[in-house]
Amino acid sequence: MSDLIIWTYDWVPQGPRGFVRDLRLRWACEEAGLAYAVRTVPFDGRQTNHLQHQPFGQVPFLSDGDLDIFESGAGLLHLARKSEKLMPRDPDGEAQTVQWMIAALNTIEMVSVPWWFLEVSGAKDNGLAGWMKSRLDQLEKVLSEREWLAADRFTSADLLMADVLRVSKVRALGDRPATETYVTRVTDRPSFKKARADQLAHFAAADESRSAAG
Amino acid sequence: MSDLIIWTYDWVPQGPRGFVRDLRLRWACEEAGLAYAVRTVPFDGRQTNHLQHQPFGQVPFLSDGDLDIFESGAGLLHLARKSEKLMPRDPDGEAQTVQWMIAALNTIEMVSVPWWFLEVSGAKDNGLAGWMKSRLDQLEKVLSEREWLAADRFTSADLLMADVLRVSKVRALGDRPATETYVTRVTDRPSFKKARADQLAHFAAADESRSAAG
Repeated sequence: MSDLIIWTYDWVPQGPRGFVRDLRLRWACEEAGLAYAVRTVPFDGRQTNHLQHQPFGQVPFLSDGDLDIFESGAGLLHLARKSEKLMPRDPDGEAQTVQWMIAALNTIEMVSVPWWFLEVSGAKDNGLAGWMKSRLDQLEKVLSEREWLAADRFTSADLLMADVLRVSKVRALGDRPATETYVTRVTDRPSFKKARADQLAHFAAADESRSAAG
Repeated sequence: MSDLIIWTYDWVPQGPRGFVRDLRLRWACEEAGLAYAVRTVPFDGRQTNHLQHQPFGQVPFLSDGDLDIFESGAGLLHLARKSEKLMPRDPDGEAQTVQWMIAALNTIEMVSVPWWFLEVSGAKDNGLAGWMKSRLDQLEKVLSEREWLAADRFTSADLLMADVLRVSKVRALGDRPATETYVTRVTDRPSFKKARADQLAHFAAADESRSAAG
């Protein structure tokens, strides 16, 4: 039995499938060869039914023995410390990896998720569009000069940044060939494909039991 | 001479003074009793003139000997590993601290900064208002049940979360007494007051040399 447990919803609608953030933790465990189990909390009543584990009613959260960690970014940092495959062990490689993980969360995703939210809300003018394009342009410049964000190799920074960037609306926002090549390079990894297929299968199985129950 | 160097702008307009994020790193060094120096890059031409240190043209970045780290969140994680005053050394205390630092960056600030940006842009309807209120309500529930976010004591998670929440527009958005008490408790710390005063003095001195040059 594994000590690592990735907690996600028991079911979600079609829309978010393939993007629920348990995928980030599954992917990291697959890359690192860490054994893990997946368990669930109910999607129905999610706003209140698991606040003791995740005070914002979201998933994923990660259990590692006695430790309970919410925020996918924090879970990834925890897993990165378990395996050199996710983060180099030398101080410079570690610092670069952590800084680019935080950049994915607090420089790119801090704009891309609210921008996306306004887009799907059907707002006429997306007030974040200019900011969004400028951040993506800055990142395009970085990615036109290197294959990987940190330490000249795949790290959990690439895992996180590519997961932020692979959203179809983000990819469609202008022509950024280096970014597109980068996202393809990172998501072509077998560990991403397995994590995504496993998440899709998890929710598809939930459809079957819902329909059997109905 | 100190190995820790906090890099910020040589000057900024009045608006952001007291909020430029070098303050987070100054505050952390003050809490931990770590010696540091402050150095500057030019505000004018910031979009392009220091991209080799900060690919998004922002500040702060942190130098620690040979290490160069951008993203204030990554700098804080780096400093937190240097001092038990910023982050407990036991695995549970560390995991809690990191998860709440990431929550400040990716759950609260991911909404609060774009929401603030739309507010100051003068958008008629702020499409992020509902999301913003719901996140703050969830946090209010947490803060009504504890004094500190992690490990029953002050940590760098409180430093970061209070810095995110102390923005006046955020504080004015509804009546959340536990959050208000929390922000006051954390920002009453002498280390915050010193870091803020030092930042204000730094930019005020820059006014004087600008005016002397002009």
